[in-house]
Amino acid sequence: MKIGILGGGQLGRMFIQNALNYDEEIYTLDPSKESSCATISYFTQGDFNDYETVLNFGIDKEVVSIEIEHVNVDALFQLEKEGVKVIPSAEIIKIIQQKIMQKEFYSNNDIPSPDFQIIQNKSELNFPFPFVQKLNTGGYDGKGVQVIKDENDLENLWNEPSVIESLVDIDKELSVILAINENGECKTFPVTEMVADPKLNLLDFNICPAVISQNIEDQISEIVEKFKNASKSAGLFAIELFLDKNGKIWVNETAPRLHNSGHQTQEGNANSQFEQMYRVLKNLPLADTDSFGYSGMLNLVGEENCFGKVKYEGLEAVLNLPKTYVHLYGKKDTKPGRKMGHINVLADSREELLDKLIHIKSLVKVVSF
Amino acid sequence: MKIGILGGGQLGRMFIQNALNYDEEIYTLDPSKESSCATISYFTQGDFNDYETVLNFGIDKEVVSIEIEHVNVDALFQLEKEGVKVIPSAEIIKIIQQKIMQKEFYSNNDIPSPDFQIIQNKSELNFPFPFVQKLNTGGYDGKGVQVIKDENDLENLWNEPSVIESLVDIDKELSVILAINENGECKTFPVTEMVADPKLNLLDFNICPAVISQNIEDQISEIVEKFKNASKSAGLFAIELFLDKNGKIWVNETAPRLHNSGHQTQEGNANSQFEQMYRVLKNLPLADTDSFGYSGMLNLVGEENCFGKVKYEGLEAVLNLPKTYVHLYGKKDTKPGRKMGHINVLADSREELLDKLIHIKSLVKVVSF
Repeated sequence: MKIGILGGGQLGRMFIQNALNYDEEIYTLDPSKESSCATISYFTQGDFNDYETVLNFGIDKEVVSIEIEHVNVDALFQLEKEGVKVIPSAEIIKIIQQKIMQKEFYSNNDIPSPDFQIIQNKSELNFPFPFVQKLNTGGYDGKGVQVIKDENDLENLWNEPSVIESLVDIDKELSVILAINENGECKTFPVTEMVADPKLNLLDFNICPAVISQNIEDQISEIVEKFKNASKSAGLFAIELFLDKNGKIWVNETAPRLHNSGHQTQEGNANSQFEQMYRVLKNLPLADTDSFGYSGMLNLVGEENCFGKVKYEGLEAVLNLPKTYVHLYGKKDTKPGRKMGHINVLADSREELLDKLIHIKSLVKVVSF
Repeated sequence: MKIGILGGGQLGRMFIQNALNYDEEIYTLDPSKESSCATISYFTQGDFNDYETVLNFGIDKEVVSIEIEHVNVDALFQLEKEGVKVIPSAEIIKIIQQKIMQKEFYSNNDIPSPDFQIIQNKSELNFPFPFVQKLNTGGYDGKGVQVIKDENDLENLWNEPSVIESLVDIDKELSVILAINENGECKTFPVTEMVADPKLNLLDFNICPAVISQNIEDQISEIVEKFKNASKSAGLFAIELFLDKNGKIWVNETAPRLHNSGHQTQEGNANSQFEQMYRVLKNLPLADTDSFGYSGMLNLVGEENCFGKVKYEGLEAVLNLPKTYVHLYGKKDTKPGRKMGHINVLADSREELLDKLIHIKSLVKVVSF
């Protein structure tokens, strides 16, 4: 089967790594010929934001999917018209691409997300402090999002179409990954808990399973069910959630693709998010997602002030540790904050897991030569 | 690091699949451009039995290894002279390639293997019936091996240099995979039990861990220790063993490479044989090899009378089963007995494991269009 993936980054790379268990021809499209997928797939160098490029890339594939959501969605609509299977649908990608449409999608479908106001420009602002501003388009990995605490911050307000959203008094950041195949089968992975690095605003640790009550599990299940019904699309989705200090769950945002918060499924679960994605694309029975004890993930990101050819300090010490798994993304050059790899860890308890993750974080550094 | 692998079959493919966790450049050499590694490595089409081809392939690599032992060993000796790291050593590959030298290696190093006679031709035969004849060279996957039961079978005796070996009264066929790095660190995987298909003489089921007494474990540990000391080589080796009905262990033969009897380590152990091989080639700390409960493996081999474009019947039913993992080798064409893939299974007991394997075997067939 000819599977086409828009984007050639680490998510695509790990998808391909898993899909080598099957006999598939996997094609990727990415602007960089140094991309993580370039040497392990049928690679096309090109801009996935360009209509003609995406259309030409997708037209002879049996299924087209994404590993990044910032792609030319008009081309995806056209591919659907031409009979190419697009997963997830062009419609749901379009909704998720634009923070305003995404927010309205939650609102229209009774999916709890923080109070908000839509603004087209600064002058329309009418919302109590403190709040979060999310640019309608262009946000990724923490970019395009800022907190405005009070009037003194107002000078920083972006004068662009945005979602203005109330700040949740966060107890925990959670994530749930769900998969829906064309038969309508839906399976979730166990809910994970994220710990963010405040400096880089990138996911730092991810812990599975999250310690949450049955009530919170139920709130999340209800959100998953509503999302499934509203999206009307096969796909693998990561819903990022806030648990507030009153025990209520809010949807922060959704990624219509493989997600950083699911990397520990590679060794921590009976099957990984990458296997599940494969099954979604082929409309196969969805895989079992049971956890094997406790699992966690630590991102390897480029250190401050390090640019150029990457060097991983301390990696050999990490390889000495039991139940510890290194995953690098085949990127030649590092820069501050760039996601270069991750390390998964298995443990018998949450405490052991956190100890291991903190220890590993102290051992390893992503620097340049 | 430039890693060169002689052979481009499924063992190389799964090695590469795992090594995608690291930033390596992997090169393969195989006569067939349809080989399992061709599209996922830097591929050279060529004959790994040809001196010049192997020398040219290996000369600019940091380490050269094998995924098949029938390679030009003179070229490997020359590469060693030129300063290229060859793992396992040219010497141990040469010994294992030739059944006569391999047998003498066991004999000289006090490694228990069945009584034998070396013959250069028929006329030298002086050995009691029944016996096994193993051709000195050219044996692979059961070829080049035959049982001679009595005088009536003598007309089938090959008139070529061979090992003539007494038949072991087999209780179980076992296998142990060991890894040795250049620092001399040595780790084994748990001993597995093989169940062979008498028709094809190919490994059929492989079960881990084998149910064996401490005494038998000790006999195997002693063999591993002797092999390590005698081989004087880093590498990953699979030692195939017979347990006879008196509780004694005999070495049948050794493969100086990744092995079919280790495939269930992909999901059944904390790390797989493929990860261990990577660590051997890089002289990294060896990985932990703990079993996760019971695991087993079923080979998917081409059905009788089926030739040409492969079709896997019943695979979707298999994908419905929990803790069941399909691994196909990217081979386009099937033929009777060809290894096309395997299925790994996890279970909580040996009984459950065998039930699952037998059920899966009844579900799936490798046929042609």
